[in-house]
Amino acid sequence: MAGSDLQLGIVGLGKMGGNLALQAVERGIDVVGTAHHKKPDLEEQGVTFAENYRDFAAYLKPPRVVYLSVPAGPPVDDVLAELLPHLGVGDVVMDGGNSFYLDSMAREKECAERGILFLDCGTSGGYTGARHGACFMVGGPEEGYRIAEPVLRRLAVPEGLVHTGKPGSGHFVKLVHNGIEFGMLQAIGEGVSLMRGCGQFDLDLRAIFHNWAHGSVIRSWLVELMEQGLGERSIESIESYVEDTGEVNWLVESAIQWEIPIPATTIAIMELFESREKDSDTHRAIALMRHGFGGHPFGKDEHIAEERRVSRITKI
Amino acid sequence: MAGSDLQLGIVGLGKMGGNLALQAVERGIDVVGTAHHKKPDLEEQGVTFAENYRDFAAYLKPPRVVYLSVPAGPPVDDVLAELLPHLGVGDVVMDGGNSFYLDSMAREKECAERGILFLDCGTSGGYTGARHGACFMVGGPEEGYRIAEPVLRRLAVPEGLVHTGKPGSGHFVKLVHNGIEFGMLQAIGEGVSLMRGCGQFDLDLRAIFHNWAHGSVIRSWLVELMEQGLGERSIESIESYVEDTGEVNWLVESAIQWEIPIPATTIAIMELFESREKDSDTHRAIALMRHGFGGHPFGKDEHIAEERRVSRITKI
Repeated sequence: MAGSDLQLGIVGLGKMGGNLALQAVERGIDVVGTAHHKKPDLEEQGVTFAENYRDFAAYLKPPRVVYLSVPAGPPVDDVLAELLPHLGVGDVVMDGGNSFYLDSMAREKECAERGILFLDCGTSGGYTGARHGACFMVGGPEEGYRIAEPVLRRLAVPEGLVHTGKPGSGHFVKLVHNGIEFGMLQAIGEGVSLMRGCGQFDLDLRAIFHNWAHGSVIRSWLVELMEQGLGERSIESIESYVEDTGEVNWLVESAIQWEIPIPATTIAIMELFESREKDSDTHRAIALMRHGFGGHPFGKDEHIAEERRVSRITKI
Repeated sequence: MAGSDLQLGIVGLGKMGGNLALQAVERGIDVVGTAHHKKPDLEEQGVTFAENYRDFAAYLKPPRVVYLSVPAGPPVDDVLAELLPHLGVGDVVMDGGNSFYLDSMAREKECAERGILFLDCGTSGGYTGARHGACFMVGGPEEGYRIAEPVLRRLAVPEGLVHTGKPGSGHFVKLVHNGIEFGMLQAIGEGVSLMRGCGQFDLDLRAIFHNWAHGSVIRSWLVELMEQGLGERSIESIESYVEDTGEVNWLVESAIQWEIPIPATTIAIMELFESREKDSDTHRAIALMRHGFGGHPFGKDEHIAEERRVSRITKI
């Protein structure tokens, strides 16, 4: 793929970063990636793997465009500490994760002092979006956005790219998106509880979600994911424990600071806490949709629970 | 349109019934309608208007297929009392409104005693769905469903038709759909409150909803309606008072009977009550989306408030 007009460096080649790398290769972008472990499957499909940040940076022509796909919190700062010395003035670093927007504002300042353009690149669409066309909401300096835009445009679905404004705004908008997502998940989950718990009618949930996905007021990707998920497994078979990465907690804390009432979003996140204590169809359904869009595993995940604890640096 | 293989009678030619009549004509269905007042605009476009139920029934070849599009509650019983004497054994009457499902079960029994096949035909998609392709979830006897199916199939979007099962199940499933809808509306509304209330970033809400409609996890018709609505009017200009037709109240009451926790749905409906007391961006946004799908007017509507009070017959 040498000679491609567009290049992208990706740090972190997990579910999101790896699929984004594959999409980028498919769309004619010259991709170099780096991660803790080699990724032979990605290399086979045309992703160049760099063993270290020096090789990673050397592969990219300035102004470099780098996308970070690592968990929020210390991992982002660890990557920046190691990566930045290899970058030059005018290079662009995008954080594609769900970092706290105040953290992103602080990181943008630090990068700007070194002449590096930091973008907070809220990324939605789950891993299938990363693989086939994502949705990006990008905050940060206009100059950096203009440099990254051609690459992002090629990786986004048509119209799925917006420059939200100042540093932090991309991750803030993504955070609000995730709050809405949690409210929607909870609402759909409650519908499942009602249809299974009403004790009458013997409803075919998969047929009903199929119907709702076609022409109803609530038609949405989440409704489609419920239908698909119910085609793959029964709701009873799912562990009623919903893990999450904790960012919506910050939204609720911010809302409390601002005294903005967001009761449904708050209930949604508190119900996730509740899900960790006891079983419910609501949470089985939420787990099923989250598996659908994020490939999130079913059941408890100590690793994610630990990440959640440390993933925000700045206190409100 | 005489000689069409399919016929449909529609009682009630308002926003939903009138648009459904126009769609039916467009799709080659021979339509007769009746309503309190003549509808010259519909007649111009090919809908036959019947002055009374005798003419209405005489126009239709047995087995007749009749769709009721009248407010839930006494209006449905009033129509049935006047209409049924003109129908014959084997005719089909569908209630397309948001009737309480226990009311529909009672009406199905009464109709069955007269040999008339009653279907509870939950109808979603708002008035644009009625006009261009709706979503139907239909409960009631298999024999009646088979008779109505060809007409419903032609008026639904592809895959937007499901037979949910026994009498009442169509309206129950539609009720659950509406509960989910309210939860989604509230979640999106809260996102608007956060983006406007955070006091930073100066976000372009329309551009953000446009972005979210393309490739995000929350992509949905409601997100599209927010974008469209924000293109037509500013959020500040909208009266922060959300009227509704009250059916989700019944869902919450049923959930309490069944002891099924549906906190987000409950919060959503209680927030509507709250909206009637004071202003908020959440409720301006909800009003904007409801205007988008249902053509619901902005602000207080004494007529709907009265309808809501009487629209359920059967006590739980």
